[in-house]
Amino acid sequence: MKARVTVTLKSGVLDPQGKAIEGALKALGIDGVAKVRQGKVFDIELDAGDQAAAQRQLSQACEKLLANTIVEDYAVAYE
Amino acid sequence: MKARVTVTLKSGVLDPQGKAIEGALKALGIDGVAKVRQGKVFDIELDAGDQAAAQRQLSQACEKLLANTIVEDYAVAYE
Repeated sequence: MKARVTVTLKSGVLDPQGKAIEGALKALGIDGVAKVRQGKVFDIELDAGDQAAAQRQLSQACEKLLANTIVEDYAVAYE
Repeated sequence: MKARVTVTLKSGVLDPQGKAIEGALKALGIDGVAKVRQGKVFDIELDAGDQAAAQRQLSQACEKLLANTIVEDYAVAYE
């Protein structure tokens, strides 16, 4: 089973990397970009037999390692 | 207009960060994870009036800054 976990900063949390990308895009002459926020994506292959087991494993993985839930949100999509 | 750009390593390109995450998940006792590959995600707000202009700006941004198209693929999704 394949899943994609997307980890993004919670709204309100400053994103200096996103700001730097905005600046770099303007410097490159690419106009019309109002705001950029960066996040991470994890493409995960699971051995889990059923979706319930996969969900349990992935939420554990997100809470313990992939996302810092104080400042980040995560979303899981199954393929 | 909002868009999400997802940048992932092309298949075949080594991903040591993904390998490290696999190892860390096993060390945390989270079994059943066969493979992890890490990528980046950019949530972008555009001032572009129409979707054609947005697409032009975003593909420029991806080619010039957001993705290294030698080793990375990118996908754009509009919200």
